[in-house]
Amino acid sequence: MPAIDLNSDLGESFGAWSMGDDAAMLEIVTSANVACGFHAGDPAGILRTLQAAAARGVAVGAHVSYPDLVGFGRRNMSVPAEQLSADVIYQIGALQGLARSVGTQVSYVKPHGALYNTIAADPVQAAAVIQAVLRLDPQLKLVCLANSPLIGWATEAGLACVAEAFADRAYTAQGTLVARGRPGAVLHDAELIAQRMLRLVRDGEIEAEDGQVICLQADSICVHGDSPDAVDIARCVKQCLLKAGTTLRAFS
Amino acid sequence: MPAIDLNSDLGESFGAWSMGDDAAMLEIVTSANVACGFHAGDPAGILRTLQAAAARGVAVGAHVSYPDLVGFGRRNMSVPAEQLSADVIYQIGALQGLARSVGTQVSYVKPHGALYNTIAADPVQAAAVIQAVLRLDPQLKLVCLANSPLIGWATEAGLACVAEAFADRAYTAQGTLVARGRPGAVLHDAELIAQRMLRLVRDGEIEAEDGQVICLQADSICVHGDSPDAVDIARCVKQCLLKAGTTLRAFS
Amino acid sequence: MPAIDLNSDLGESFGAWSMGDDAAMLEIVTSANVACGFHAGDPAGILRTLQAAAARGVAVGAHVSYPDLVGFGRRNMSVPAEQLSADVIYQIGALQGLARSVGTQVSYVKPHGALYNTIAADPVQAAAVIQAVLRLDPQLKLVCLANSPLIGWATEAGLACVAEAFADRAYTAQGTLVARGRPGAVLHDAELIAQRMLRLVRDGEIEAEDGQVICLQADSICVHGDSPDAVDIARCVKQCLLKAGTTLRAFS
Amino acid sequence: MPAIDLNSDLGESFGAWSMGDDAAMLEIVTSANVACGFHAGDPAGILRTLQAAAARGVAVGAHVSYPDLVGFGRRNMSVPAEQLSADVIYQIGALQGLARSVGTQVSYVKPHGALYNTIAADPVQAAAVIQAVLRLDPQLKLVCLANSPLIGWATEAGLACVAEAFADRAYTAQGTLVARGRPGAVLHDAELIAQRMLRLVRDGEIEAEDGQVICLQADSICVHGDSPDAVDIARCVKQCLLKAGTTLRAFS
Repeated sequence: MPAIDLNSDLGESFGAWSMGDDAAMLEIVTSANVACGFHAGDPAGILRTLQAAAARGVAVGAHVSYPDLVGFGRRNMSVPAEQLSADVIYQIGALQGLARSVGTQVSYVKPHGALYNTIAADPVQAAAVIQAVLRLDPQLKLVCLANSPLIGWATEAGLACVAEAFADRAYTAQGTLVARGRPGAVLHDAELIAQRMLRLVRDGEIEAEDGQVICLQADSICVHGDSPDAVDIARCVKQCLLKAGTTLRAFS
Repeated sequence: MPAIDLNSDLGESFGAWSMGDDAAMLEIVTSANVACGFHAGDPAGILRTLQAAAARGVAVGAHVSYPDLVGFGRRNMSVPAEQLSADVIYQIGALQGLARSVGTQVSYVKPHGALYNTIAADPVQAAAVIQAVLRLDPQLKLVCLANSPLIGWATEAGLACVAEAFADRAYTAQGTLVARGRPGAVLHDAELIAQRMLRLVRDGEIEAEDGQVICLQADSICVHGDSPDAVDIARCVKQCLLKAGTTLRAFS
Repeated sequence: MPAIDLNSDLGESFGAWSMGDDAAMLEIVTSANVACGFHAGDPAGILRTLQAAAARGVAVGAHVSYPDLVGFGRRNMSVPAEQLSADVIYQIGALQGLARSVGTQVSYVKPHGALYNTIAADPVQAAAVIQAVLRLDPQLKLVCLANSPLIGWATEAGLACVAEAFADRAYTAQGTLVARGRPGAVLHDAELIAQRMLRLVRDGEIEAEDGQVICLQADSICVHGDSPDAVDIARCVKQCLLKAGTTLRAFS
Repeated sequence: MPAIDLNSDLGESFGAWSMGDDAAMLEIVTSANVACGFHAGDPAGILRTLQAAAARGVAVGAHVSYPDLVGFGRRNMSVPAEQLSADVIYQIGALQGLARSVGTQVSYVKPHGALYNTIAADPVQAAAVIQAVLRLDPQLKLVCLANSPLIGWATEAGLACVAEAFADRAYTAQGTLVARGRPGAVLHDAELIAQRMLRLVRDGEIEAEDGQVICLQADSICVHGDSPDAVDIARCVKQCLLKAGTTLRAFS
């Protein structure tokens, strides 16, 4: 059985508003994608999440975003490459500073929301993000949508990539995510999800929405924790993988 | 003749809005206090200022602030200590990231505006800033108002301090700055300002508003660049000091 | 039995972050203090709250704040009077526009958080808020802390005031609120709170923290809805008042 | 000679940052597109611009934008229709409040930057803006790019439109603006610009970049004031039109 990483989006509270159950998720995952203040996360809250991640030995990644708090980074923005690069460096640097102050470090970068989706396929914004990471620290890994063109672009540029699958999402026969708006795009059955992830880890394949079995090579699985149900699903995935003999460990 | 540092606030443009003449000031100063995004400075603009500073060998400091863009960091805010510490670390980290990406580094921290004035005398907010710097990187120096209690607090906590004088400001007989609102608080005569700074560097003294001569020990002189007149004053101070045989060099 | 108004802070979600249970509270209160975007509330979320308030015939007030999203408007800010006045007008105007678009209107102004506390006693910021309301629309009423100097200042300036008591807060013998940090400042016993409010409405008096009975003249009672417990307390207060024959109706 | 309106973007300073010469432009134009805080403009600065506009009898429009201060509203954003509608109402309402407080009123809406360009051709975002204006106040007029599909959509929805031409921009043979990036897209010769605008007003035609003469029906001409040269061009256009006997007056 190969090893796999479980990652989740954390540190997404903001000021008086809380989101997700970071404490619960840090007991489950091996990598924490920590918000950097552009779509979520205020410095004091980020710091608390980093302390909790450090205490549990969970790896930390910079969950960088477009500057769009009110839209939670989910709205596409035509940010010019020079600005996007600088925004990405700024966010990683800020998180590195906070991480260092609590004795941990940032080991990877995972773009968030609309930025994640855009750079999976848009070469201009992808290059801006890749160059940002390379200029700041070429040791940082980049989490990319499995099967996306981004992986090729990043690898070619000299960046180590982590291919990511999504536990609770349906896939098309082409290996892409079924768009959120479409029926069946998001899965809710914990046991089914866990079995799909086990098959993914063990066999490198997943059943697409039309029933076809497709190849999907992933180094990390994203699980969500933004509702009690989501936490339960994440826990179920973890237990299923462990029971089957998989080693869970951070890719970094 | 002792050596002295000249510092100035740079990188204070924001998006489409420009402020100051960074290029001109970087020809004059030895240390650049670069905005970190909380009172001014967007990542792409900050990056350009850092590149220009690096190209001229000017030292870089993090000009950290309360989170108050619309108020330019000039309004007092009762930010709780935990939040203030995290805000400071976030800003320094962000600037460190941007600096690293262009081959330079942050060597000191200078709080901006209302935060600068507040921590000069308020022990709670001062401790929050001091602890933030210590937790992030105890090698960073802290620029403090000359003669302020902050110097004692920071030194006691183990932080290296840089005492700062202001070229274009009047001083009280107690060695504090004359409050901006009062008549004569801001000086405009370039030649007079230059002579005052020469005396400060050479003899460690300055004439207060009431004519008394007071001791003022400063490691760095702050000059402004937010208007053509201000740039001229800064240039005049530099030339006067150089002519008198002073060495200008960054304290860091 | 006199009539009384019950008000609560609503519309305080922001983007992807939700806060409070607006639907539940709109079944309880007669006046809704709706966030205006400076401490909480994004336009689309505010609009939904306004629609719900309009559907239930709940009066709407502008819950204006310092510009401090990350601090939720709870941090004191030294905003100059001219800026504060303009900020207040901007927020009321924005809420008026949203209210008009769903067929309701803004009938009062209630400052939020640190601004509320500051203008209760600070004549300069109080005057800035009072003048803002008068310049925009002198028909708007101003909700003021009962027993505070603000009531005198606003009345003298020609503004109609609404004196407000807080259901879940302890009072000093001087009739001011016990500061939040102190033990016993916030009450949690729903039945006790309801009885205190009944006495307040019926007799115009309340028991202070030291056991003294003090006079407290209030036109409106603030109840909170930021937790399931808080909603229960609010409901309990309402039922107790109704059972005793009190009429609940908006002051406006 | 027909009458025409001259409009310009004003109130675009923000906090400590100034932009444009509002005083000079208010001597030239008949309509002021005033920023509403989403791409530029803080409440106190907007208020000063409104006072100056009121003093000179210049009509006021709401220059609404995507929420993107750092990008000055120039970056496309995929804001969902419900959010966009609410954002537009919020901004118009805020400006109406500020305008009312200084004795003037908002008589039209002109979307800014990327939003302006997007709704000229995108039916979904266009509908969101049109519905926002209709729901808030159907008396408000909408300034639309001359020759754009938006004019048809807005008219059909029952909104009065103002067709707008740009003084300093080149046009394609299809009657659209030459994209900013292309050579020759922005004109700089004041006398040439003035002659083009005179022809536009008098004859309803303009010479496209390829030399063809095309029909362009405009009710208002946009002139810029963001540099001393731009102010000179605006003044030149005005003088040329007046000399030829054109009446300059607000469309509203």
